[in-house]
Amino acid sequence: MSKQDLVIGIDVGGQSTKLGVVDARGNILYQSVISSLQRELDDYISDLTSAINDLVAQCKEDGNVKGIGIGAPNGNYYKGTIEFAPNLKWAYDSNGTPMVIQFAKLISDRVNIPVVLTNDANAAAVGEMTYGIAKGMKNFIMITLGTGVGSGIVINGNIVYGHDAFAGELGHTTIIRDGRECGCGLKGCLETYTSATGVARTAKEFLQRDNTPSLLRNLDIDRISSKDIYDAAKQGDKLALEIFDFTADIMGKAFANFVAFSAPEAIILFGGLTKAKEFLTEKIEKSMNENMLKMWKGKVKLLYSTLKDSDAAILGASALGWEV
Amino acid sequence: MSKQDLVIGIDVGGQSTKLGVVDARGNILYQSVISSLQRELDDYISDLTSAINDLVAQCKEDGNVKGIGIGAPNGNYYKGTIEFAPNLKWAYDSNGTPMVIQFAKLISDRVNIPVVLTNDANAAAVGEMTYGIAKGMKNFIMITLGTGVGSGIVINGNIVYGHDAFAGELGHTTIIRDGRECGCGLKGCLETYTSATGVARTAKEFLQRDNTPSLLRNLDIDRISSKDIYDAAKQGDKLALEIFDFTADIMGKAFANFVAFSAPEAIILFGGLTKAKEFLTEKIEKSMNENMLKMWKGKVKLLYSTLKDSDAAILGASALGWEV
Repeated sequence: MSKQDLVIGIDVGGQSTKLGVVDARGNILYQSVISSLQRELDDYISDLTSAINDLVAQCKEDGNVKGIGIGAPNGNYYKGTIEFAPNLKWAYDSNGTPMVIQFAKLISDRVNIPVVLTNDANAAAVGEMTYGIAKGMKNFIMITLGTGVGSGIVINGNIVYGHDAFAGELGHTTIIRDGRECGCGLKGCLETYTSATGVARTAKEFLQRDNTPSLLRNLDIDRISSKDIYDAAKQGDKLALEIFDFTADIMGKAFANFVAFSAPEAIILFGGLTKAKEFLTEKIEKSMNENMLKMWKGKVKLLYSTLKDSDAAILGASALGWEV
Repeated sequence: MSKQDLVIGIDVGGQSTKLGVVDARGNILYQSVISSLQRELDDYISDLTSAINDLVAQCKEDGNVKGIGIGAPNGNYYKGTIEFAPNLKWAYDSNGTPMVIQFAKLISDRVNIPVVLTNDANAAAVGEMTYGIAKGMKNFIMITLGTGVGSGIVINGNIVYGHDAFAGELGHTTIIRDGRECGCGLKGCLETYTSATGVARTAKEFLQRDNTPSLLRNLDIDRISSKDIYDAAKQGDKLALEIFDFTADIMGKAFANFVAFSAPEAIILFGGLTKAKEFLTEKIEKSMNENMLKMWKGKVKLLYSTLKDSDAAILGASALGWEV
């Protein structure tokens, strides 16, 4: 039997980097994980190329790896670079100045396999379109709700990269004028309200606002996580439910604006916070419909990713591997 | 000499409908205008088909009209229909209910020439890309500042139509939460601040706010036009300048959000209000740069259409005529 073509998909996260060997049907044959926390770029690249070489050796019997697709924060599809990635220590020099890292070239030079790079949210959108609930959809917006809020916008079947490859920073559109300070330097960004950390900020604000009883008061106010709020909501905690209502309302308002831009068939949510969808869906839809033009009311779907978080990122990145 | 191919471009405006015969190089060979104010659809269609037939007869010596492109409010590119067009009387039945008008088909059946339809802002963007300052640009957003605020979004060289052909309603994105009431039923839409009528609303608000002396106080407060404000600003009137500052600031904030979506090379402004660009440009750029992520600051161009208003719409619509 002749050997099949395979690709490797790599998801560079703030904490860890996940790798997977994927076949043409989207099966992940082998997987591995390395830490993303190296301080020096050289060390990280060494770890990553070792992991790639190990996978290539591991799948030798199954087929040949013809391409590598990488999804990384602020990955530039056009240039193959990583720039301005706030959560990656090795992306900054010893003075804390962000470097322009020729990431795709660094890797491909060492492993002798062509590499295509994009940002993590775009990779997730490609994964969803190729293997998930967006299969067959030509126009949708994927919103990733994690530590930050990212987005991958698909128009006419293609990821929107824009003039400089950095399109789709919907987490940094202003949703509340002069609102919460964002790590990016702006104020009122969507991310400051609807990321996991944004929801935790809401909890803190609400707890300090008055003395409404809540299970959350048993916790250290500075360490409350979105998971804690979810657990409390599950037990019917009113304040926790109010936190999700507030979050969902803001999402709906933001999504309504996104719809006015690209008139998608669906908004698709992805990432940790979607575990709380039972407390979010109805209110997001209500708020979205209240804030859209009549012609869209009730017509734009709100969906959730059907891929496991880690799979979607690896599969999405791997789909780029076929493009090389 | 064999006859050349020609197209007809038609711009359906709220007041008048402009037609032009255009050659492959973008020269408008013949033009005509009819009123858009007919009450009955049949009457309007008769007027329009007569005007088309007259132009076809007129250009018989020059060439053959192979296609017709039409830009119309709420024109649906996919279906060839006009739906929900608030400013066209003949688009509503006698009960005031909006009709779904098979516009492209109605015209092509009568004149026996294929017809392609899109909305007016998209047509303007195509015109700018084919013949104007956006020549060669692959990613830009055209904002039309007229009685309303429209937009034509170009990504990767193509107009963004979205799932239902109604993408690009940036005039109805929320810029001030719970702000001014908009004709569309929503609140705080960009259009309520930066259209010609929006600027007049600002003038009224500012005049009623206090007693700052202003040339505008010599005018009927309910009939002040953006032209009046421009004239006053030209004479150094402080309040008029403040009105433009306020308008420009809002535009900049809105444009910053649009940049986060599609990372365009340029925002291009078009329409009546751009006559006041000497009072707008600097402040729009300042506000836009203050509200964008670092990687975009100072990099996204703010440009003005280089086509005459009426020409851009006819040329843009005509460009669609070649697609038939």
